[in-house]
Amino acid sequence: MAKVFDAAEVEKHNTRESCWVTLYGKVYDVTDFLDEHPGGAKVILKLAGKDATEEYDPIHPPGILEENLKPEACLGTINPDTLPKPEAQPEPASTEEGQGPPPMESLLNLDEIEQVATKNVSKKAWAYYFSASDDKVTKSFNTAIYRSILLRPRVFIDCTRCDLDTSVLGHKLGMPIFVSPAAMARLGHPAGEAGIAEACRSFGAMQVISNNASMTPEQIIKDAALDQVFGWQIYVQIDRKKSEAMLARINKLDAIKFIVLTLDAPVPGKREDDERSSNASAPKPAGGSPEKQSEAGDAGGGVGKQLFAGTDPSLTWKETLPWLAKHTNKPIILKGLQAHEDAYIASLHTPQVKGIILSNHGGRALDTAPPAVHTLMEIRKFCPEVFDKLEVWVDGGIRRGTDVVKALCLGAKAVGVGRPALWGLGAGGVDGVKRTFEILAEETKTCMRLLGVERVEELGPQHINTRLAEQQIYDGPSGLELVRGTFRAKL
Amino acid sequence: MAKVFDAAEVEKHNTRESCWVTLYGKVYDVTDFLDEHPGGAKVILKLAGKDATEEYDPIHPPGILEENLKPEACLGTINPDTLPKPEAQPEPASTEEGQGPPPMESLLNLDEIEQVATKNVSKKAWAYYFSASDDKVTKSFNTAIYRSILLRPRVFIDCTRCDLDTSVLGHKLGMPIFVSPAAMARLGHPAGEAGIAEACRSFGAMQVISNNASMTPEQIIKDAALDQVFGWQIYVQIDRKKSEAMLARINKLDAIKFIVLTLDAPVPGKREDDERSSNASAPKPAGGSPEKQSEAGDAGGGVGKQLFAGTDPSLTWKETLPWLAKHTNKPIILKGLQAHEDAYIASLHTPQVKGIILSNHGGRALDTAPPAVHTLMEIRKFCPEVFDKLEVWVDGGIRRGTDVVKALCLGAKAVGVGRPALWGLGAGGVDGVKRTFEILAEETKTCMRLLGVERVEELGPQHINTRLAEQQIYDGPSGLELVRGTFRAKL
Amino acid sequence: MAKVFDAAEVEKHNTRESCWVTLYGKVYDVTDFLDEHPGGAKVILKLAGKDATEEYDPIHPPGILEENLKPEACLGTINPDTLPKPEAQPEPASTEEGQGPPPMESLLNLDEIEQVATKNVSKKAWAYYFSASDDKVTKSFNTAIYRSILLRPRVFIDCTRCDLDTSVLGHKLGMPIFVSPAAMARLGHPAGEAGIAEACRSFGAMQVISNNASMTPEQIIKDAALDQVFGWQIYVQIDRKKSEAMLARINKLDAIKFIVLTLDAPVPGKREDDERSSNASAPKPAGGSPEKQSEAGDAGGGVGKQLFAGTDPSLTWKETLPWLAKHTNKPIILKGLQAHEDAYIASLHTPQVKGIILSNHGGRALDTAPPAVHTLMEIRKFCPEVFDKLEVWVDGGIRRGTDVVKALCLGAKAVGVGRPALWGLGAGGVDGVKRTFEILAEETKTCMRLLGVERVEELGPQHINTRLAEQQIYDGPSGLELVRGTFRAKL
Amino acid sequence: MAKVFDAAEVEKHNTRESCWVTLYGKVYDVTDFLDEHPGGAKVILKLAGKDATEEYDPIHPPGILEENLKPEACLGTINPDTLPKPEAQPEPASTEEGQGPPPMESLLNLDEIEQVATKNVSKKAWAYYFSASDDKVTKSFNTAIYRSILLRPRVFIDCTRCDLDTSVLGHKLGMPIFVSPAAMARLGHPAGEAGIAEACRSFGAMQVISNNASMTPEQIIKDAALDQVFGWQIYVQIDRKKSEAMLARINKLDAIKFIVLTLDAPVPGKREDDERSSNASAPKPAGGSPEKQSEAGDAGGGVGKQLFAGTDPSLTWKETLPWLAKHTNKPIILKGLQAHEDAYIASLHTPQVKGIILSNHGGRALDTAPPAVHTLMEIRKFCPEVFDKLEVWVDGGIRRGTDVVKALCLGAKAVGVGRPALWGLGAGGVDGVKRTFEILAEETKTCMRLLGVERVEELGPQHINTRLAEQQIYDGPSGLELVRGTFRAKL
Repeated sequence: MAKVFDAAEVEKHNTRESCWVTLYGKVYDVTDFLDEHPGGAKVILKLAGKDATEEYDPIHPPGILEENLKPEACLGTINPDTLPKPEAQPEPASTEEGQGPPPMESLLNLDEIEQVATKNVSKKAWAYYFSASDDKVTKSFNTAIYRSILLRPRVFIDCTRCDLDTSVLGHKLGMPIFVSPAAMARLGHPAGEAGIAEACRSFGAMQVISNNASMTPEQIIKDAALDQVFGWQIYVQIDRKKSEAMLARINKLDAIKFIVLTLDAPVPGKREDDERSSNASAPKPAGGSPEKQSEAGDAGGGVGKQLFAGTDPSLTWKETLPWLAKHTNKPIILKGLQAHEDAYIASLHTPQVKGIILSNHGGRALDTAPPAVHTLMEIRKFCPEVFDKLEVWVDGGIRRGTDVVKALCLGAKAVGVGRPALWGLGAGGVDGVKRTFEILAEETKTCMRLLGVERVEELGPQHINTRLAEQQIYDGPSGLELVRGTFRAKL
Repeated sequence: MAKVFDAAEVEKHNTRESCWVTLYGKVYDVTDFLDEHPGGAKVILKLAGKDATEEYDPIHPPGILEENLKPEACLGTINPDTLPKPEAQPEPASTEEGQGPPPMESLLNLDEIEQVATKNVSKKAWAYYFSASDDKVTKSFNTAIYRSILLRPRVFIDCTRCDLDTSVLGHKLGMPIFVSPAAMARLGHPAGEAGIAEACRSFGAMQVISNNASMTPEQIIKDAALDQVFGWQIYVQIDRKKSEAMLARINKLDAIKFIVLTLDAPVPGKREDDERSSNASAPKPAGGSPEKQSEAGDAGGGVGKQLFAGTDPSLTWKETLPWLAKHTNKPIILKGLQAHEDAYIASLHTPQVKGIILSNHGGRALDTAPPAVHTLMEIRKFCPEVFDKLEVWVDGGIRRGTDVVKALCLGAKAVGVGRPALWGLGAGGVDGVKRTFEILAEETKTCMRLLGVERVEELGPQHINTRLAEQQIYDGPSGLELVRGTFRAKL
Repeated sequence: MAKVFDAAEVEKHNTRESCWVTLYGKVYDVTDFLDEHPGGAKVILKLAGKDATEEYDPIHPPGILEENLKPEACLGTINPDTLPKPEAQPEPASTEEGQGPPPMESLLNLDEIEQVATKNVSKKAWAYYFSASDDKVTKSFNTAIYRSILLRPRVFIDCTRCDLDTSVLGHKLGMPIFVSPAAMARLGHPAGEAGIAEACRSFGAMQVISNNASMTPEQIIKDAALDQVFGWQIYVQIDRKKSEAMLARINKLDAIKFIVLTLDAPVPGKREDDERSSNASAPKPAGGSPEKQSEAGDAGGGVGKQLFAGTDPSLTWKETLPWLAKHTNKPIILKGLQAHEDAYIASLHTPQVKGIILSNHGGRALDTAPPAVHTLMEIRKFCPEVFDKLEVWVDGGIRRGTDVVKALCLGAKAVGVGRPALWGLGAGGVDGVKRTFEILAEETKTCMRLLGVERVEELGPQHINTRLAEQQIYDGPSGLELVRGTFRAKL
Repeated sequence: MAKVFDAAEVEKHNTRESCWVTLYGKVYDVTDFLDEHPGGAKVILKLAGKDATEEYDPIHPPGILEENLKPEACLGTINPDTLPKPEAQPEPASTEEGQGPPPMESLLNLDEIEQVATKNVSKKAWAYYFSASDDKVTKSFNTAIYRSILLRPRVFIDCTRCDLDTSVLGHKLGMPIFVSPAAMARLGHPAGEAGIAEACRSFGAMQVISNNASMTPEQIIKDAALDQVFGWQIYVQIDRKKSEAMLARINKLDAIKFIVLTLDAPVPGKREDDERSSNASAPKPAGGSPEKQSEAGDAGGGVGKQLFAGTDPSLTWKETLPWLAKHTNKPIILKGLQAHEDAYIASLHTPQVKGIILSNHGGRALDTAPPAVHTLMEIRKFCPEVFDKLEVWVDGGIRRGTDVVKALCLGAKAVGVGRPALWGLGAGGVDGVKRTFEILAEETKTCMRLLGVERVEELGPQHINTRLAEQQIYDGPSGLELVRGTFRAKL
């Protein structure tokens, strides 16, 4: 029979030497696990001796506790009567009528959904989702660049029929929109990544599951439709064995059609809103040399930084790609390309690499990095042959159906949304994500109809005026000659 | 003798199975008409069992009730004492002195008139007039582009005389300004479209009557001057018979000199202010799948969306133009062209097509579509011969006499205003529209004088500096070669 | 002995048939003068029967009353006890300390002086000075264009000496700055135009006396230094005799070295602040057709519009210039040129024309007209030979010494300020204008020193980076070929 | 035994004829020194008869009193009981928690540090540090131009290692960042310039000591590390002997590796915040002619202007450089170059000149002068050979690690920060400066890693997109041909 502890007893074990925590009513001794925790010891020590369930739950997939702790780490159960009473939680800010979020169908666009979600989710979730690097120049630019591209409507064309159907990597989709790998969905709503999957199912949208999802891949795809398309994002771990184990597990999941290797964030960007939110809730170590503080700061940081723990910053074309190809039987998509040179190099790595996602990580990696639209236009300018060899997808900044159409006109096969899916979830759970897709689908169709276009394949550069954006596109020295030389020599 | 009903009795018939409404003191059974209503059944059902007069009146031309309902649908009259007392209506927000709108002559520009009208009209009218698609990027750009074009005043030229006289399609006008087809004028003021006609008469301005006018064409032109010029806008109906009947009726009206076929809105744009205003007043259906909600949303939507009911999105150069030419004896003007290619194609369809109106529907169709100034400049750049074959008119964003002059300098024969006429009406009825024309006329003349120009025909590109705008004009692949090939082959 | 009237008696004569006014304690019968009043009958009728001194005084030069009225028009004097008590005048808004304007030397730049003047002068004066046409696009652009031009400081140059001395038309000046013709100085301060002259004397600045000065030319130049330089601005009157009489009078004044013929305002621009201010103080005629109201509005309008009464809009190169040359013995400067073509034509009219002032009338004539910087750059681009034949001066938007320097670098010989002189006067009378000059002189010298330049003649295009402005300069069809053809043929 | 004075006795000597002041408890007769004071007599006279310690201390290096006054000037000591009680000093505005500045490690970026310092330091210090010339156009542009340059991240590159080590003039540095000469550090914090030196030591950063430091060079370098690198800035005095004496003193200090001759401020710019702050605390002379006021204003002015007293504006390539080379045995760096022509001329003066600092004096000299980024790009465009002959450093506007990287990509060897060091000091003393360096170092490394760059030498133009900035770069007539001609002839 399991031993029952009083909270006062657990409370005593609050040091690196003896560190206990309470989770879901059970008491664990995690002293030995401190150094193995991918998020660092510090975040655990902040909760040492306490009931950590509320902090732990929304950012860890169920079951991961059992996977990582030995059975004997579970010491027994807590006597719930001895736990401190939870403070009266302030009600989530409600809408004007004072009765929770408004009906999803009354929200007319993605900005409104974000506004509702902002009021609805915890400050920590908001900070993690909203944050981007430094001054958020890139985050803002991601959306603004779409507004600066004009459409060229054509008239007197029968636009009765309009169809968002498309295909990626040979798989049929109901719309050319996918959910970018976005971590920690349960932070915003208990439905989590599985809720996003449910919404995707309704619209034939594709979902790329984050390496840092708050649910397991198996849980996320559990109720998938037969023809539903998923990808799985990998952050390669310094401990390759962990990544190989994970890949082996993914290889078994048929619903996952491809592996997305994220390249734009080998080290975490500086997401100040996220860090500020974490700092606010954490007691600060007093004094210490700046060097020590820096280390502490690194170990702490925001949710975003914690998720990077264990990620390998040493990936290369030469070493990592063959390794990955060896450990998966699925097509590989490279995510985070931001220069035409890298797109070109990727195109030399077919057939292992089947596609690329032009992305700046939603402005969360390097501030003043270019929007995906720039990279699309760079490729068109310097090495358009890439479009023939690879599928090119984009994400970042999409807020309107007209944005989707513009990306497609520039050559993208599919367009990803990250934050909008999370805001949808935060605003209204599964229904919020559905509403997000519904709005994007309706707007995209209206746009296509008014351009006189029936199917997404018909969209092309003749439908847009990119004159202003062209004046911003890189025209310095291209690394292409160098690349071509290198690879010609090698091949 | 007509039967007299108590309101309580009428109130019981509030379902799709038995739907009664009270209009102008009479009780109608509209159950059978529900599915025929161009605006959809839903908007009627919202008023089922009630006195619908206040909602019905400002958006339906008088007489249309009798046209559409069989005599037996009128069941009798209502006992007015049994109707609920109207709620004390909040007074329209008045000006500072608290005594209604200020005298029209104290309003110095079109923005001030819009401000007064905004306070003066109902929220529903404001939302319908003000709204534009998505983020209103195009609506704002329509005006901003004029501000970015500089004038080039010339000096030491006798500018004693200055004359706004011009002619379109061979008809003399007192000024090169027309009222674009703008629906639902009675929503803003009881004088309605006939009031606009009265103001036009005073200034020799031309008026294009909206297909969705809140008065009949006959009513609008009733007091026209002998030489007053009207056009009539057609939205072709899915049920062609209805359109043909309407054309036959228009053919008989001599004051109407041409037919305007609107092409830029085969499907409705997304006017969020309008939808929000309608949502606010409508009870929402609870629950339902997103698909169902979407349908419901479509049926509902704003005033703008309701007006689209029955409109045919399948129009084509090949089918629709011959059909229209067959059913009217008047010249055809195509409205809503936004790409030089379409202007060029139109120029191949003389003599049926006599002119084109470059328009983005006041920013109400596709957001981030180009302003008419862009299309004018595209035509000048790619196919200036269009100006020799067709009259080119523009609308959208005109707020100052200098804007009028700039459009004329770029080759427009006439310049349309839509919202300004409605705001004028809303601010002060017929006098408000007159004041709008007076301001535009005075400003246009002052501008011409300061350019050293006596007559509108003298205005040309030498009077303006479009350097900044030129840097935005489309210079991607032109569809012209394709068009020329196609038509050469065909002809 | 003059008759003494009670106010009540005078008050009865308040109609067009019998119109009396009290001025400076005397009673005048102005019935016959009504139709001759250059500002129109209406403004007099508004004051009919009343003591008009306060309205009349600041906008009429002393002595003009006697010039225009026959002796018998003076009926006698008013009994001051019978006049209504003046309303307690609200104190002019004072500075924070509540004790009038701050010491002039505490004001650090021209914007601060404008702010103080804005608080200090009457609303009417503010509105007249501040106002510009339409949306004030040109007024703002006048200043903004200077900010967009970058300076190119050079180093390691001895800048101990720095000298603002220059000469125009062969006359030495202490600084390359002049006061543009700016009307109604006494509206802002009793020192009036003579006060501006006094400040100019201290700094060797040149002053162009407005045709609509609130003091006579003789009064303004009365205390001039021997070497002080004045110009006199003429608005040619429809009644040429009046202009010729005035010219004859000016010809006798040696201090006035040249005549400035203003060409950029043959008709008044639409200065809404000014009109609004006048409307606010005027009782409105009730009702009336819009046409009548328009006439009324014209006759009324703001101070600016009243000053235009009698001005001839029919001036031409061919007729007016010879006429003017015949009636003056002084060099002629043409003001208000805004296109390179007109600058070129002016250069063909030497030797009568000695110089031109590039000006858009402070943004008060045609809105969206180009700033003088544009015209300077147009001339440099299309017909730089103009600089060899004529002196080119500019005005409009100058607020900083760096602005002065930039204009000089682009080829201007002198730089005019209009509003800044009036704001200086309004802020602190003569001392305020002196402070304005002092600031400009200091800033200009600091700028020259930091560019490594000792004398104004050394300044050139190598000292500025106009790259951004160049992208805005007109590059459409030049009228030069036409002009050259015309004149070659003619000469 | 020193005489003891009552404050009342000292107070009597408050005129130019007999001027006593109390400093650090001693009473001095400074009557004879008035005319020698580098900052002018006026600032002393403002404090005549009073205890001047609080005003004197933070802007004068310790010991300078003894250096400049003869021993007999010290008359005795003050009886402290007779001094007026100091007014209760308002507490420096504290942070929300009401307990002084927040912990430095909680500040996430340089803007936050500036905000904290703004609350923390005296108004006078804030005004002196914050101020820039005129409208601060250049100050703002300095930062904005960096934001307009986009980065070009490359992917799939091992970025485990990242190293900020670099070298300047053959000396190793821990990071490519230096502290620009920034005066009056003790105004913001008692740790002063020595505190900045201590922070530099922790990070291997270089420090250029201001000519107007509030501590002596000896004091500043006292605790320097063996390999710590300092420069010393010279403003050449009109009295060359003073400068020569100072140079002789500096020549003896091994830690000072080079002399920085500042060229961009031969005369002071117009720093209005600084002047306003000084005006606010100074009693104004009443009346006086504007000329006199101007003189007074010059003598007074802000802190910045006072520091210029005695500075020689007559420096030239020909005279000053040989003189300086004669009086120092250290390499010479020229600071304040803003045109490619001057950079080129500097490159002709090797080997005496070893480097140049492109700088506009933090926007404090000439407003609308170009940012250093412009000058870098001008050199790249017109005379890239300069980079081979000289080390090129820059400062101005750096606020982010990405800014540092962009400057390095454009060819800078090192990047200076001025205000950020002072704000760091003001926010938290030595720890504040350390935090400033720490943030910059971390941000710079993150940026390099995300570009796929390990060492600063690898950074190049291929890592940035300067397309927008290129459209602003000077392309007028280059003075280079002239320079080349001149020097070829001379050499």
